[in-house]
Amino acid sequence: MAAAAPPPPPSDVPEPRMAPPETTPIGHPVFTRIRLATPLDVPFIHKLIHQMAVFEKLTHLFSATESSLSSTLFLSPPFKSFTIFLLELSSSPIPPLLSPSPSFTPIEKTFNFDLPLNDPEKDVFSVHYGSDQVVIAGFVLFFPNYSTFLGKPGFYVEDLFVRECYRRKGFGKMLLSAVAKQAVKMGYGRVEWVVLDWNVNAIKFYEQMGAQVLPEWRICRLTGDSLQADQNANV
Amino acid sequence: MAAAAPPPPPSDVPEPRMAPPETTPIGHPVFTRIRLATPLDVPFIHKLIHQMAVFEKLTHLFSATESSLSSTLFLSPPFKSFTIFLLELSSSPIPPLLSPSPSFTPIEKTFNFDLPLNDPEKDVFSVHYGSDQVVIAGFVLFFPNYSTFLGKPGFYVEDLFVRECYRRKGFGKMLLSAVAKQAVKMGYGRVEWVVLDWNVNAIKFYEQMGAQVLPEWRICRLTGDSLQADQNANV
Repeated sequence: MAAAAPPPPPSDVPEPRMAPPETTPIGHPVFTRIRLATPLDVPFIHKLIHQMAVFEKLTHLFSATESSLSSTLFLSPPFKSFTIFLLELSSSPIPPLLSPSPSFTPIEKTFNFDLPLNDPEKDVFSVHYGSDQVVIAGFVLFFPNYSTFLGKPGFYVEDLFVRECYRRKGFGKMLLSAVAKQAVKMGYGRVEWVVLDWNVNAIKFYEQMGAQVLPEWRICRLTGDSLQADQNANV
Repeated sequence: MAAAAPPPPPSDVPEPRMAPPETTPIGHPVFTRIRLATPLDVPFIHKLIHQMAVFEKLTHLFSATESSLSSTLFLSPPFKSFTIFLLELSSSPIPPLLSPSPSFTPIEKTFNFDLPLNDPEKDVFSVHYGSDQVVIAGFVLFFPNYSTFLGKPGFYVEDLFVRECYRRKGFGKMLLSAVAKQAVKMGYGRVEWVVLDWNVNAIKFYEQMGAQVLPEWRICRLTGDSLQADQNANV
Protein backbone atom coordinates (compact mmCIF):
# COMPACT_ATOMS: atom_id res chain seq x y z
CA MET A 1 0.00 0.00 0.00
CA ALA A 2 1.50 3.38 -1.03
CA ALA A 3 2.04 5.93 1.79
CA ALA A 4 0.02 8.62 -0.08
CA ALA A 5 -3.12 6.54 -0.47
CA PRO A 6 -6.31 7.94 1.09
CA PRO A 7 -7.59 6.22 4.23
CA PRO A 8 -9.82 3.28 3.37
CA PRO A 9 -13.58 3.59 3.74
CA PRO A 10 -15.12 2.31 6.95
CA SER A 11 -15.49 -1.47 6.72
CA ASP A 12 -15.78 -4.67 8.76
CA VAL A 13 -12.52 -5.78 7.25
CA PRO A 14 -9.78 -5.12 9.79
CA GLU A 15 -7.18 -2.54 8.90
CA PRO A 16 -4.21 -4.39 7.42
CA ARG A 17 -1.14 -4.30 9.58
CA MET A 18 1.96 -2.75 8.10
CA ALA A 19 3.32 -5.36 5.72
CA PRO A 20 6.53 -5.65 3.74
CA PRO A 21 6.43 -4.16 0.22
CA GLU A 22 4.42 -6.44 -2.09
CA THR A 23 7.43 -7.12 -4.29
CA THR A 24 9.17 -8.93 -1.41
CA PRO A 25 8.41 -12.70 -1.46
CA ILE A 26 6.49 -13.72 1.67
CA GLY A 27 7.54 -16.92 3.43
CA HIS A 28 9.92 -19.67 2.49
CA PRO A 29 9.00 -21.87 -0.46
CA VAL A 30 9.78 -25.57 -0.14
CA PHE A 31 9.70 -27.75 -3.23
CA THR A 32 8.93 -31.40 -2.57
CA ARG A 33 8.87 -34.55 -4.64
CA ILE A 34 7.84 -38.13 -3.89
CA ARG A 35 9.74 -40.62 -6.01
CA LEU A 36 10.47 -44.34 -6.00
CA ALA A 37 13.59 -45.31 -4.07
CA THR A 38 16.32 -47.19 -5.93
CA PRO A 39 19.19 -49.43 -4.72
CA LEU A 40 21.40 -46.32 -4.65
CA ASP A 41 19.23 -44.94 -1.85
CA VAL A 42 19.95 -47.83 0.56
CA PRO A 43 22.36 -45.79 2.75
CA PHE A 44 19.64 -43.14 3.24
CA ILE A 45 16.98 -45.77 3.88
CA HIS A 46 19.17 -47.47 6.47
CA LYS A 47 19.73 -44.17 8.30
CA LEU A 48 16.02 -43.33 8.20
CA ILE A 49 15.03 -46.71 9.63
CA HIS A 50 17.62 -46.32 12.38
CA GLN A 51 16.25 -42.89 13.27
CA MET A 52 12.80 -44.42 13.43
CA ALA A 53 14.08 -47.09 15.84
CA VAL A 54 15.63 -44.35 18.01
CA PHE A 55 12.37 -42.37 17.96
CA GLU A 56 10.37 -45.47 18.97
CA LYS A 57 12.97 -46.41 21.63
CA LEU A 58 13.31 -49.77 19.92
CA THR A 59 16.99 -49.79 18.92
CA HIS A 60 17.39 -53.14 20.72
CA LEU A 61 15.16 -54.61 17.98
CA PHE A 62 17.10 -52.95 15.18
CA SER A 63 19.43 -55.29 13.34
CA ALA A 64 19.04 -54.20 9.70
CA THR A 65 22.23 -53.43 7.79
CA GLU A 66 22.74 -51.78 4.42
CA SER A 67 23.66 -55.24 3.20
CA SER A 68 20.50 -56.93 4.53
CA LEU A 69 18.37 -54.17 3.00
CA SER A 70 20.15 -54.40 -0.35
CA SER A 71 19.71 -58.15 -0.54
CA THR A 72 15.98 -58.10 0.28
CA LEU A 73 14.63 -54.92 -1.33
CA PHE A 74 14.33 -53.99 -5.03
CA LEU A 75 14.04 -57.64 -6.11
CA SER A 76 10.61 -57.15 -7.72
CA PRO A 77 9.14 -54.42 -9.91
CA PRO A 78 7.66 -51.50 -7.95
CA PHE A 79 4.30 -52.20 -6.25
CA LYS A 80 4.53 -55.98 -6.81
CA SER A 81 6.38 -56.45 -3.56
CA PHE A 82 8.24 -54.22 -1.05
CA THR A 83 8.19 -50.67 -2.38
CA ILE A 84 9.66 -47.45 -1.00
CA PHE A 85 8.68 -43.87 -1.74
CA LEU A 86 11.19 -41.21 -0.71
CA LEU A 87 10.26 -37.61 0.02
CA GLU A 88 12.75 -35.15 -1.40
CA LEU A 89 12.80 -31.50 -0.45
CA SER A 90 14.59 -28.38 -1.63
CA SER A 91 14.34 -24.62 -1.35
CA SER A 92 14.60 -24.41 -5.15
CA PRO A 93 12.76 -26.33 -7.88
CA ILE A 94 13.85 -29.97 -8.02
CA PRO A 95 15.26 -31.04 -11.40
CA PRO A 96 13.56 -33.91 -13.24
CA LEU A 97 14.83 -37.44 -12.72
CA LEU A 98 17.35 -38.58 -15.31
CA SER A 99 15.98 -42.13 -15.31
CA PRO A 100 12.33 -41.91 -14.29
CA SER A 101 10.58 -45.20 -13.57
CA PRO A 102 7.87 -46.09 -16.08
CA SER A 103 5.87 -47.43 -13.12
CA PHE A 104 5.44 -44.18 -11.25
CA THR A 105 5.26 -40.49 -12.06
CA PRO A 106 6.78 -38.52 -9.19
CA ILE A 107 4.36 -36.40 -7.17
CA GLU A 108 5.44 -32.79 -6.74
CA LYS A 109 4.06 -30.16 -4.43
CA THR A 110 5.26 -26.72 -3.40
CA PHE A 111 4.77 -25.51 0.16
CA ASN A 112 5.26 -22.04 1.54
CA PHE A 113 6.24 -21.76 5.19
CA ASP A 114 6.53 -18.72 7.42
CA LEU A 115 9.86 -19.85 8.77
CA PRO A 116 12.73 -21.60 7.05
CA LEU A 117 13.11 -25.33 7.78
CA ASN A 118 16.47 -25.81 9.43
CA ASP A 119 17.92 -29.25 8.85
CA PRO A 120 20.86 -30.05 11.14
CA GLU A 121 21.61 -33.21 9.13
CA LYS A 122 21.33 -31.68 5.70
CA ASP A 123 24.71 -32.99 4.57
CA VAL A 124 24.01 -36.56 5.67
CA PHE A 125 20.73 -36.72 3.75
CA SER A 126 21.71 -34.82 0.59
CA VAL A 127 21.22 -36.13 -2.92
CA HIS A 128 22.96 -34.33 -5.77
CA TYR A 129 21.37 -33.92 -9.19
CA GLY A 130 24.17 -32.26 -11.12
CA SER A 131 24.74 -28.98 -9.30
CA ASP A 132 21.38 -29.22 -7.54
CA GLN A 133 21.12 -30.57 -4.05
CA VAL A 134 17.98 -31.92 -2.39
CA VAL A 135 17.50 -33.58 0.97
CA ILE A 136 15.69 -36.78 1.83
CA ALA A 137 13.09 -35.85 4.43
CA GLY A 138 11.21 -39.10 4.92
CA PHE A 139 10.00 -42.36 3.46
CA VAL A 140 7.16 -44.83 3.33
CA LEU A 141 7.65 -48.57 2.84
CA PHE A 142 4.64 -50.57 1.68
CA PHE A 143 3.75 -53.78 -0.12
CA PRO A 144 0.66 -55.60 -1.37
CA ASN A 145 -1.54 -57.47 1.06
CA TYR A 146 -4.71 -59.37 0.23
CA SER A 147 -8.30 -59.31 1.39
CA THR A 148 -10.01 -62.63 0.79
CA PHE A 149 -13.38 -61.04 1.60
CA LEU A 150 -12.90 -58.41 -1.12
CA GLY A 151 -11.13 -60.89 -3.38
CA LYS A 152 -8.54 -58.29 -4.20
CA PRO A 153 -5.21 -56.88 -3.07
CA GLY A 154 -4.53 -53.78 -1.03
CA PHE A 155 -1.42 -52.09 0.29
CA TYR A 156 0.04 -52.53 3.73
CA VAL A 157 2.16 -49.64 4.99
CA GLU A 158 4.95 -51.04 7.14
CA ASP A 159 6.70 -47.75 7.87
CA LEU A 160 5.89 -44.09 7.49
CA PHE A 161 8.63 -41.81 8.75
CA VAL A 162 9.45 -38.11 8.44
CA ARG A 163 12.68 -36.79 9.94
CA GLU A 164 12.20 -34.73 13.09
CA CYS A 165 12.93 -31.29 11.64
CA TYR A 166 10.26 -31.81 8.95
CA ARG A 167 7.38 -32.98 11.13
CA ARG A 168 3.96 -31.35 11.52
CA LYS A 169 4.13 -29.82 8.04
CA GLY A 170 1.83 -32.22 6.15
CA PHE A 171 4.63 -34.37 4.72
CA GLY A 172 3.47 -37.54 6.47
CA LYS A 173 0.02 -37.13 5.00
CA MET A 174 1.56 -36.44 1.60
CA LEU A 175 3.43 -39.77 1.74
CA LEU A 176 0.40 -41.74 2.96
CA SER A 177 -1.82 -40.10 0.35
CA ALA A 178 0.65 -41.11 -2.34
CA VAL A 179 0.19 -44.74 -1.31
CA ALA A 180 -3.60 -44.33 -1.31
CA LYS A 181 -3.45 -42.77 -4.76
CA GLN A 182 -1.39 -45.67 -6.07
CA ALA A 183 -3.82 -48.17 -4.51
CA VAL A 184 -6.75 -46.50 -6.28
CA LYS A 185 -4.82 -46.40 -9.54
CA MET A 186 -4.22 -50.14 -9.31
CA GLY A 187 -7.84 -50.90 -8.40
CA TYR A 188 -6.85 -52.08 -4.94
CA GLY A 189 -9.42 -52.27 -2.18
CA ARG A 190 -7.72 -50.78 0.85
CA VAL A 191 -4.65 -49.41 2.56
CA GLU A 192 -3.81 -50.63 6.04
CA TRP A 193 -1.18 -49.96 8.69
CA VAL A 194 -0.85 -50.20 12.45
CA VAL A 195 -0.58 -47.61 15.19
CA LEU A 196 0.30 -47.83 18.88
CA ASP A 197 -2.87 -47.50 20.97
CA TRP A 198 -1.38 -44.78 23.21
CA ASN A 199 -0.45 -42.62 20.21
CA VAL A 200 -3.67 -40.60 20.39
CA ASN A 201 -2.39 -37.80 18.18
CA ALA A 202 -1.59 -40.24 15.40
CA ILE A 203 -4.95 -41.99 15.81
CA LYS A 204 -6.79 -38.65 15.61
CA PHE A 205 -4.79 -37.72 12.50
CA TYR A 206 -5.60 -41.03 10.80
CA GLU A 207 -9.29 -40.79 11.68
CA GLN A 208 -9.38 -37.30 10.19
CA MET A 209 -8.04 -38.83 6.99
CA GLY A 210 -11.05 -41.15 7.00
CA ALA A 211 -9.28 -44.23 8.33
CA GLN A 212 -11.02 -46.67 10.64
CA VAL A 213 -9.10 -47.86 13.68
CA LEU A 214 -10.12 -51.47 14.28
CA PRO A 215 -10.32 -51.90 18.05
CA GLU A 216 -10.65 -55.68 18.37
CA TRP A 217 -7.76 -57.10 16.38
CA ARG A 218 -4.42 -58.01 17.95
CA ILE A 219 -1.23 -58.83 16.13
CA CYS A 220 0.32 -62.25 16.75
CA ARG A 221 3.97 -62.80 15.97
CA LEU A 222 6.05 -65.95 15.79
CA THR A 223 9.74 -65.11 15.61
CA GLY A 224 13.20 -66.12 16.82
CA ASP A 225 13.45 -69.46 18.61
CA SER A 226 9.69 -69.97 18.57
CA LEU A 227 9.62 -69.71 14.81
CA GLN A 228 12.50 -72.17 14.50
CA ALA A 229 10.90 -74.55 17.00
CA ASP A 230 7.42 -74.40 15.62
CA GLN A 231 8.26 -75.43 12.12
CA ASN A 232 9.12 -78.92 13.39
CA ALA A 233 6.22 -79.19 15.80
CA ASN A 234 3.60 -81.77 15.01
CA VAL A 235 4.35 -81.80 11.29
CA MET B 1 -4.10 -112.98 26.79
CA ALA B 2 -5.01 -116.66 26.60
CA ALA B 3 -7.89 -117.87 28.79
CA ALA B 4 -5.71 -120.60 30.34
CA ALA B 5 -2.98 -118.26 31.52
CA PRO B 6 -2.29 -118.22 35.27
CA PRO B 7 -3.43 -115.16 37.18
CA PRO B 8 -0.85 -112.37 36.97
CA PRO B 9 1.38 -111.70 39.93
CA PRO B 10 0.29 -108.84 42.21
CA SER B 11 1.42 -105.57 40.67
CA ASP B 12 0.76 -101.85 40.66
CA VAL B 13 0.02 -102.06 36.99
CA PRO B 14 -3.76 -102.08 36.53
CA GLU B 15 -5.23 -105.18 35.03
CA PRO B 16 -5.72 -104.53 31.28
CA ARG B 17 -9.33 -104.27 30.24
CA MET B 18 -10.57 -106.70 27.68
CA ALA B 19 -9.35 -105.36 24.34
CA PRO B 20 -10.09 -106.32 20.73
CA PRO B 21 -7.74 -108.89 19.19
CA GLU B 22 -4.39 -107.25 18.39
CA THR B 23 -4.77 -107.87 14.67
CA THR B 24 -7.84 -105.55 14.51
CA PRO B 25 -6.84 -101.99 13.54
CA ILE B 26 -7.69 -99.54 16.34
CA GLY B 27 -9.22 -96.18 15.45
CA HIS B 28 -9.73 -94.46 12.14
CA PRO B 29 -6.67 -93.47 10.14
CA VAL B 30 -6.79 -90.13 8.35
CA PHE B 31 -4.21 -89.35 5.71
CA THR B 32 -3.52 -85.66 5.21
CA ARG B 33 -1.48 -83.60 2.78
CA ILE B 34 -0.69 -79.89 2.57
CA ARG B 35 -0.08 -78.78 -0.99
CA LEU B 36 0.05 -75.53 -2.96
CA ALA B 37 -3.29 -74.43 -4.38
CA THR B 38 -3.56 -73.92 -8.15
CA PRO B 39 -5.99 -71.92 -10.30
CA LEU B 40 -8.10 -75.09 -10.62
CA ASP B 41 -8.80 -74.87 -6.88
CA VAL B 42 -10.49 -71.46 -7.06
CA PRO B 43 -14.05 -72.85 -6.67
CA PHE B 44 -12.97 -74.59 -3.44
CA ILE B 45 -11.14 -71.50 -2.22
CA HIS B 46 -14.17 -69.33 -2.86
CA LYS B 47 -16.41 -71.69 -0.89
CA LEU B 48 -13.92 -71.86 1.98
CA ILE B 49 -13.67 -68.07 2.22
CA HIS B 50 -17.44 -67.80 2.19
CA GLN B 51 -17.71 -70.34 5.01
CA MET B 52 -15.17 -68.29 6.94
CA ALA B 53 -17.30 -65.14 6.44
CA VAL B 54 -20.36 -67.05 7.71
CA PHE B 55 -18.41 -68.31 10.73
CA GLU B 56 -17.22 -64.79 11.55
CA LYS B 57 -20.72 -63.33 10.95
CA LEU B 58 -19.17 -61.00 8.39
CA THR B 59 -20.99 -62.01 5.20
CA HIS B 60 -21.95 -58.34 4.70
CA LEU B 61 -18.24 -57.69 4.04
CA PHE B 62 -17.90 -60.62 1.65
CA SER B 63 -17.84 -59.63 -2.01
CA ALA B 64 -15.20 -61.97 -3.47
CA THR B 65 -16.20 -63.95 -6.54
CA GLU B 66 -14.47 -66.83 -8.27
CA SER B 67 -13.65 -64.34 -10.99
CA SER B 68 -12.11 -61.76 -8.63
CA LEU B 69 -10.04 -64.48 -6.98
CA SER B 70 -8.88 -65.89 -10.31
CA SER B 71 -7.80 -62.50 -11.58
CA THR B 72 -5.80 -61.59 -8.46
CA LEU B 73 -4.29 -64.86 -7.23
CA PHE B 74 -1.65 -67.07 -8.85
CA LEU B 75 -0.06 -64.16 -10.72
CA SER B 76 3.36 -64.64 -9.07
CA PRO B 77 5.44 -67.72 -8.28
CA PRO B 78 4.58 -69.35 -4.94
CA PHE B 79 5.84 -67.49 -1.84
CA LYS B 80 6.71 -64.31 -3.80
CA SER B 81 3.23 -62.94 -3.35
CA PHE B 82 -0.19 -64.30 -2.30
CA THR B 83 0.17 -68.02 -1.66
CA ILE B 84 -2.36 -70.64 -0.62
CA PHE B 85 -1.78 -73.99 1.01
CA LEU B 86 -4.70 -76.43 0.91
CA LEU B 87 -5.19 -79.25 3.40
CA GLU B 88 -6.33 -82.47 1.76
CA LEU B 89 -7.66 -85.38 3.71
CA SER B 90 -8.60 -88.99 2.96
CA SER B 91 -9.27 -92.23 4.77
CA SER B 92 -6.82 -93.95 2.41
CA PRO B 93 -3.29 -92.97 1.34
CA ILE B 94 -3.33 -89.91 -0.93
CA PRO B 95 -1.77 -90.50 -4.34
CA PRO B 96 1.21 -88.35 -5.37
CA LEU B 97 0.55 -85.16 -7.34
CA LEU B 98 0.84 -85.57 -11.10
CA SER B 99 2.41 -82.11 -11.53
CA PRO B 100 4.17 -81.30 -8.27
CA SER B 101 5.45 -77.75 -7.88
CA PRO B 102 9.24 -77.45 -7.80
CA SER B 103 8.76 -74.74 -5.16
CA PHE B 104 7.18 -76.88 -2.48
CA THR B 105 7.23 -80.50 -1.41
CA PRO B 106 3.83 -81.40 0.01
CA ILE B 107 3.73 -82.13 3.73
CA GLU B 108 2.06 -85.41 4.64
CA LYS B 109 0.95 -86.68 8.00
CA THR B 110 -1.20 -89.59 9.13
CA PHE B 111 -3.55 -89.20 12.06
CA ASN B 112 -5.45 -91.88 13.89
CA PHE B 113 -8.74 -90.90 15.48
CA ASP B 114 -11.01 -92.84 17.81
CA LEU B 115 -14.07 -91.87 15.84
CA PRO B 116 -14.57 -91.44 12.11
CA LEU B 117 -14.70 -87.84 10.83
CA ASN B 118 -18.10 -87.31 9.25
CA ASP B 119 -18.10 -84.69 6.55
CA PRO B 120 -21.61 -83.55 5.54
CA GLU B 121 -20.15 -81.61 2.58
CA LYS B 122 -17.82 -84.29 1.34
CA ASP B 123 -19.13 -84.16 -2.23
CA VAL B 124 -18.82 -80.38 -2.48
CA PHE B 125 -15.18 -80.39 -1.40
CA SER B 126 -13.96 -83.53 -3.21
CA VAL B 127 -10.93 -83.63 -5.46
CA HIS B 128 -10.43 -86.65 -7.67
CA TYR B 129 -7.03 -88.08 -8.43
CA GLY B 130 -7.89 -90.84 -10.91
CA SER B 131 -10.11 -93.18 -8.97
CA ASP B 132 -9.00 -91.71 -5.63
CA GLN B 133 -11.05 -89.08 -3.88
CA VAL B 134 -9.81 -86.68 -1.23
CA VAL B 135 -11.54 -83.76 0.47
CA ILE B 136 -10.34 -80.22 0.98
CA ALA B 137 -10.54 -79.61 4.73
CA GLY B 138 -9.02 -76.14 5.06
CA PHE B 139 -6.59 -73.56 3.78
CA VAL B 140 -4.12 -70.90 4.74
CA LEU B 141 -3.48 -67.78 2.63
CA PHE B 142 -0.24 -65.92 3.28
CA PHE B 143 2.19 -63.55 1.58
CA PRO B 144 5.52 -61.86 2.29
CA ASN B 145 5.65 -58.86 4.55
CA TYR B 146 8.75 -56.91 5.56
CA SER B 147 10.41 -55.89 8.79
CA THR B 148 12.58 -52.82 8.34
CA PHE B 149 14.07 -53.37 11.82
CA LEU B 150 15.19 -56.89 10.89
CA GLY B 151 15.99 -55.84 7.34
CA LYS B 152 14.32 -58.95 6.04
CA PRO B 153 10.99 -60.36 4.92
CA GLY B 154 8.56 -62.49 6.87
CA PHE B 155 5.19 -64.03 6.12
CA TYR B 156 1.84 -62.55 6.98
CA VAL B 157 -1.01 -65.02 7.36
CA GLU B 158 -4.22 -63.41 6.14
CA ASP B 159 -6.50 -66.40 6.62
CA LEU B 160 -6.31 -69.72 8.39
CA PHE B 161 -9.46 -71.77 8.11
CA VAL B 162 -10.45 -75.36 8.79
CA ARG B 163 -13.95 -76.53 7.93
CA GLU B 164 -16.18 -77.09 10.95
CA CYS B 165 -16.25 -80.89 10.90
CA TYR B 166 -12.44 -81.03 10.98
CA ARG B 167 -11.77 -78.61 13.82
CA ARG B 168 -9.97 -79.34 17.10
CA LYS B 169 -7.92 -82.12 15.51
CA GLY B 170 -4.60 -80.28 15.06
CA PHE B 171 -5.17 -79.37 11.40
CA GLY B 172 -5.03 -75.62 12.03
CA LYS B 173 -1.70 -75.98 13.74
CA MET B 174 -0.49 -78.20 10.90
CA LEU B 175 -1.31 -75.44 8.37
CA LEU B 176 0.27 -72.68 10.46
CA SER B 177 3.36 -74.78 11.10
CA ALA B 178 3.71 -75.36 7.36
CA VAL B 179 3.92 -71.58 6.88
CA ALA B 180 6.47 -71.30 9.72
CA LYS B 181 8.52 -74.09 8.17
CA GLN B 182 8.52 -72.33 4.80
CA ALA B 183 9.55 -69.05 6.47
CA VAL B 184 12.53 -70.73 8.13
CA LYS B 185 13.47 -72.44 4.88
CA MET B 186 13.54 -69.06 3.13
CA GLY B 187 15.53 -67.39 5.91
CA TYR B 188 12.61 -65.16 6.80
CA GLY B 189 12.47 -63.49 10.20
CA ARG B 190 8.92 -63.93 11.41
CA VAL B 191 5.36 -65.03 10.79
CA GLU B 192 2.54 -62.71 11.80
CA TRP B 193 -1.24 -62.75 11.79
CA VAL B 194 -4.08 -61.11 13.70
CA VAL B 195 -6.63 -62.44 16.13
CA LEU B 196 -9.80 -60.94 17.65
CA ASP B 197 -9.13 -59.89 21.24
CA TRP B 198 -12.21 -61.71 22.57
CA ASN B 199 -11.12 -65.00 20.99
CA VAL B 200 -9.36 -66.20 24.15
CA ASN B 201 -9.17 -69.82 23.02
CA ALA B 202 -7.34 -68.83 19.86
CA ILE B 203 -5.02 -66.51 21.79
CA LYS B 204 -4.20 -69.30 24.25
CA PHE B 205 -3.55 -71.69 21.37
CA TYR B 206 -1.22 -69.22 19.63
CA GLU B 207 0.68 -68.47 22.84
CA GLN B 208 1.18 -72.18 23.40
CA MET B 209 2.77 -72.28 19.95
CA GLY B 210 5.25 -69.68 21.16
CA ALA B 211 3.61 -66.67 19.48
CA GLN B 212 3.60 -63.27 21.16
CA VAL B 213 0.35 -61.32 21.15
CA LEU B 214 1.26 -57.64 20.81
CA PRO B 215 -1.19 -55.75 23.03
CA GLU B 216 -0.51 -52.15 21.97
CA TRP B 217 -0.87 -52.15 18.20
CA ARG B 218 -4.12 -51.30 16.43
CA ILE B 219 -4.93 -51.82 12.78
CA CYS B 220 -5.83 -48.74 10.73
CA ARG B 221 -7.73 -49.18 7.49
CA LEU B 222 -8.49 -46.76 4.69
CA THR B 223 -11.07 -48.22 2.33
CA GLY B 224 -14.13 -47.44 0.23
CA ASP B 225 -15.00 -43.77 -0.19
CA SER B 226 -12.26 -42.66 2.23
CA LEU B 227 -9.61 -44.36 0.12
CA GLN B 228 -10.96 -42.76 -3.04
CA ALA B 229 -11.20 -39.35 -1.38
CA ASP B 230 -7.85 -39.42 0.31
CA GLN B 231 -5.80 -40.00 -2.78
CA ASN B 232 -6.72 -36.50 -3.96
CA ALA B 233 -6.37 -34.77 -0.62
CA ASN B 234 -3.55 -32.33 -0.26
CA VAL B 235 -1.42 -33.88 -2.99
